Amino acid sequence: MNRLDDLKEKLQEFNRERDWDQFHSPKNIAMALSVEASEIVEIFQWMQEEQSYDLERDEKEKLEEELGDVFLYLQLLASKYDIDLLEVARKKLAKNKKKYPVNKAKGSSKKYAEL
Amino acid sequence: MNRLDDLKEKLQEFNRERDWDQFHSPKNIAMALSVEASEIVEIFQWMQEEQSYDLERDEKEKLEEELGDVFLYLQLLASKYDIDLLEVARKKLAKNKKKYPVNKAKGSSKKYAEL
Amino acid sequence: MNRLDDLKEKLQEFNRERDWDQFHSPKNIAMALSVEASEIVEIFQWMQEEQSYDLERDEKEKLEEELGDVFLYLQLLASKYDIDLLEVARKKLAKNKKKYPVNKAKGSSKKYAEL
Amino acid sequence: MNRLDDLKEKLQEFNRERDWDQFHSPKNIAMALSVEASEIVEIFQWMQEEQSYDLERDEKEKLEEELGDVFLYLQLLASKYDIDLLEVARKKLAKNKKKYPVNKAKGSSKKYAEL
Repeated sequence: MNRLDDLKEKLQEFNRERDWDQFHSPKNIAMALSVEASEIVEIFQWMQEEQSYDLERDEKEKLEEELGDVFLYLQLLASKYDIDLLEVARKKLAKNKKKYPVNKAKGSSKKYAEL
Repeated sequence: MNRLDDLKEKLQEFNRERDWDQFHSPKNIAMALSVEASEIVEIFQWMQEEQSYDLERDEKEKLEEELGDVFLYLQLLASKYDIDLLEVARKKLAKNKKKYPVNKAKGSSKKYAEL
Repeated sequence: MNRLDDLKEKLQEFNRERDWDQFHSPKNIAMALSVEASEIVEIFQWMQEEQSYDLERDEKEKLEEELGDVFLYLQLLASKYDIDLLEVARKKLAKNKKKYPVNKAKGSSKKYAEL
Repeated sequence: MNRLDDLKEKLQEFNRERDWDQFHSPKNIAMALSVEASEIVEIFQWMQEEQSYDLERDEKEKLEEELGDVFLYLQLLASKYDIDLLEVARKKLAKNKKKYPVNKAKGSSKKYAEL
């Protein structure tokens, strides 16, 4: 079994053991996902951009925890609909390639509507 | 090469071709990640919990796109520090197992501090 | 002096005394604002909708604090551009009246594009 | 009647006319509030801090709209519990004065726990 499938199985077991599926409606998981994403933002909010490349040890550990949290909720939400995270990410990247053609998007942070 | 490594490589190439690393400070990616997470919340905000289990086709497609976006930014942020997403998620799940022991957490949505 | 102007003045004094304007770029305040908004979401994330109408005392106190935080950052951000919060809210409400005419929007949670 | 009370009344009337209270559980409003706060973040996500002080005209207009949206949802949420926004903001500011005494907090962006 690959690592992602292994994690999905462990995550499912974790929630089943605690009888937490009753709280885990997709709506609620979406909320929890955004809350965890904001905890990542909190790490960076008063930093200058330069600083953010070079975190102190405790900030790095905090970030690792929060990245883990976001990933777990993301996977949990995807699992509710049998969505394959890697597949939808691959598709979205392919879509972005068309939306942001290299010759127009190179070096620009403009949104595609403005390109 | 496994699917995750393949995606990481394609993502890196996508940004390199567009010369977008200059915009992708960890601080900025954290912001983009939370913005995409909120676009998932937006799908569910006026739904009842029950409804959220059973999305209409266009809602499901929208969700797949946003899950893809969140995953891409999450991976992009992790890559900035050579963090292995699956490894930090696995560690976080192990930590949660200790924080929320089955005998105390079963059937309860209380935060661990209140258990 | 009315209460809002009084609060704006006290907020400005608070930050000036601590020499915090250096951290308070609009970009950073926007991040802090969204982090505080997520702390409100956190209060409600595992509740059923019905429950959310009737908070326990400690939840209510937590909510009051977070509402205060969001308001303070919102005002701080508006002040950076001399934007009058009540005026832009009034304008937005007037705009929404046109976007969501009563005869079409009544009893519907659809986004205006779908109306 | 002062401007805030006038706005609260108009907001209430707006929702009553559209029969939207049924969708406006505090839980749902909290979600909508955080979604709107993220739309403010979106304006700034690829900007450098310096740029964020000096928005272009269309960015400024977008910001005004989103500030209006956040304020309206913030007021709507507060109204659900008869919470006075200005009062809780005033209280939070007073609390922050104690948490961040000038002699310790001056010129520092550290969280109070680290002071």
